[in-house]
Amino acid sequence: MNPIQWFSEISNELWPGQCFSLKVQKVLHEERSKYQDIKIVQSESHGVVLILDGIIQCTERDEFAYQEMISFLPLCCHPNPQRVLIVGGGDGGVAREVVKHPAVQEVHQVEIDERVVELSKQYLPFMACGFESPKVRLTIGDGFEYMKQHEGAFDVIITDSSDPIGPAETLFRESYFELVKRALKPGGIICSQGGSFWLDAGHVRETLDYCRKHFPRVTYGLAAVPSYPTGQIGFFIASLNPETDFREPARKFDDTEIDQMGMRYYTTDIHRSAFTLPRFAAKALNP
Amino acid sequence: MNPIQWFSEISNELWPGQCFSLKVQKVLHEERSKYQDIKIVQSESHGVVLILDGIIQCTERDEFAYQEMISFLPLCCHPNPQRVLIVGGGDGGVAREVVKHPAVQEVHQVEIDERVVELSKQYLPFMACGFESPKVRLTIGDGFEYMKQHEGAFDVIITDSSDPIGPAETLFRESYFELVKRALKPGGIICSQGGSFWLDAGHVRETLDYCRKHFPRVTYGLAAVPSYPTGQIGFFIASLNPETDFREPARKFDDTEIDQMGMRYYTTDIHRSAFTLPRFAAKALNP
Repeated sequence: MNPIQWFSEISNELWPGQCFSLKVQKVLHEERSKYQDIKIVQSESHGVVLILDGIIQCTERDEFAYQEMISFLPLCCHPNPQRVLIVGGGDGGVAREVVKHPAVQEVHQVEIDERVVELSKQYLPFMACGFESPKVRLTIGDGFEYMKQHEGAFDVIITDSSDPIGPAETLFRESYFELVKRALKPGGIICSQGGSFWLDAGHVRETLDYCRKHFPRVTYGLAAVPSYPTGQIGFFIASLNPETDFREPARKFDDTEIDQMGMRYYTTDIHRSAFTLPRFAAKALNP
Repeated sequence: MNPIQWFSEISNELWPGQCFSLKVQKVLHEERSKYQDIKIVQSESHGVVLILDGIIQCTERDEFAYQEMISFLPLCCHPNPQRVLIVGGGDGGVAREVVKHPAVQEVHQVEIDERVVELSKQYLPFMACGFESPKVRLTIGDGFEYMKQHEGAFDVIITDSSDPIGPAETLFRESYFELVKRALKPGGIICSQGGSFWLDAGHVRETLDYCRKHFPRVTYGLAAVPSYPTGQIGFFIASLNPETDFREPARKFDDTEIDQMGMRYYTTDIHRSAFTLPRFAAKALNP
């Protein structure tokens, strides 16, 4: 019998002094790809877990909350999101959600690390099923280059990236908002993983301020994801349309439609409440 | 130099397979009281932490979210909460919040373990300051006995208890709702720590169903508290007044009032959104 093993998500840079751990039944795969350390484990309580560079990207138990919210918050704020770009998202979870939206006709996805895609197909079929839709066209490559070559091409761009907190990411973010802006059609909307204000409200505010330089409408929405640090994750959402009201979705689904699409987290009411922040956060993030 | 020490919150019964840990700079106090193990530590990232029977009760960094929500959700649903009973809450945090509400005239509190009160005064003055208000009358004793002796006495009863999940707690909960009902004045409202549906939606539903046997209006509200398992905590809220609309508070405070009261989490918008649940939870908890 093996001794009990825990995977502990320690990051002195991103969340010093705290740590979330999952009991591991079996390590399913481990490798160093060209870009990162990839680890896939079977956990006792959270199903299969994908870990990149020592950080939990998703667990089978609660990934739906993240994937639904990063997809449907921007999609439902857009009156007609026909062409969508996903940057990153190599596990397929965002693609799985985006294709559910009835207005979506084409999903272009650019993931830099093909090993994440291949391993997700093998070990995370509940997410990688997103790649099976005929709407999805996957390119292995650099999302930044792809956007430069596709100016004015997309209604919605979703960036499913690694954590934006940390000094190396600051420059990335400033140029990023300019780049995604150019890849959007008029009235386009972007959504990007935006960290948690419980960890570092100052950094979230800084990135929001970069975004405000390039977009007339900017906000920060929330989802509860228990296996992420602090149990919450935020999203930067910005629109080129100054009339966009993020709180009141342009497209509303009733409970029957929500259930038919197999949604387990997103509803129109959840959409509205995602933009209500605790008082300290509202004061820290807004001008 | 001491080696790095972590406190790990392991519970095979309440949250098997997962664990939250905090880096400990110094153990400030440890004892076995008549009722429980009490541990108070200085953490590296979360300030002072109170731990009872191995479970984190509150951290200096995020306790305000819990205290404000368990207090102001029920208080603001009541049109005139003059007399309030707090059961438990020996750290003083709930009392600190309850006395802020301008309608509150008397706060009766019953805590069984006087050592929690004494140690909180010594090590958690940012919470124990709640006991200093002239509105608060603290009794060391059994909350159940106290309620039996005070029938029809209170407008609002807040139970700041340990976790309700686990087999031993089931019977407790069924008799509990009958008891608090009798201690309420007509139209009275209760609020009680209600666990997280991310951990065990079936148990939350079961307890809600007990509550529905005794109260005409019952709901479950949410707060984000990063240092609790799953990062969220829920509350059972019930009213004897069948007209109570939990989502639309009877008492609304504007931002100026909120800031004057020193609130860091609660706002009227947060109140409204606290009752919006993810789709899977809404389906699991409602009849």
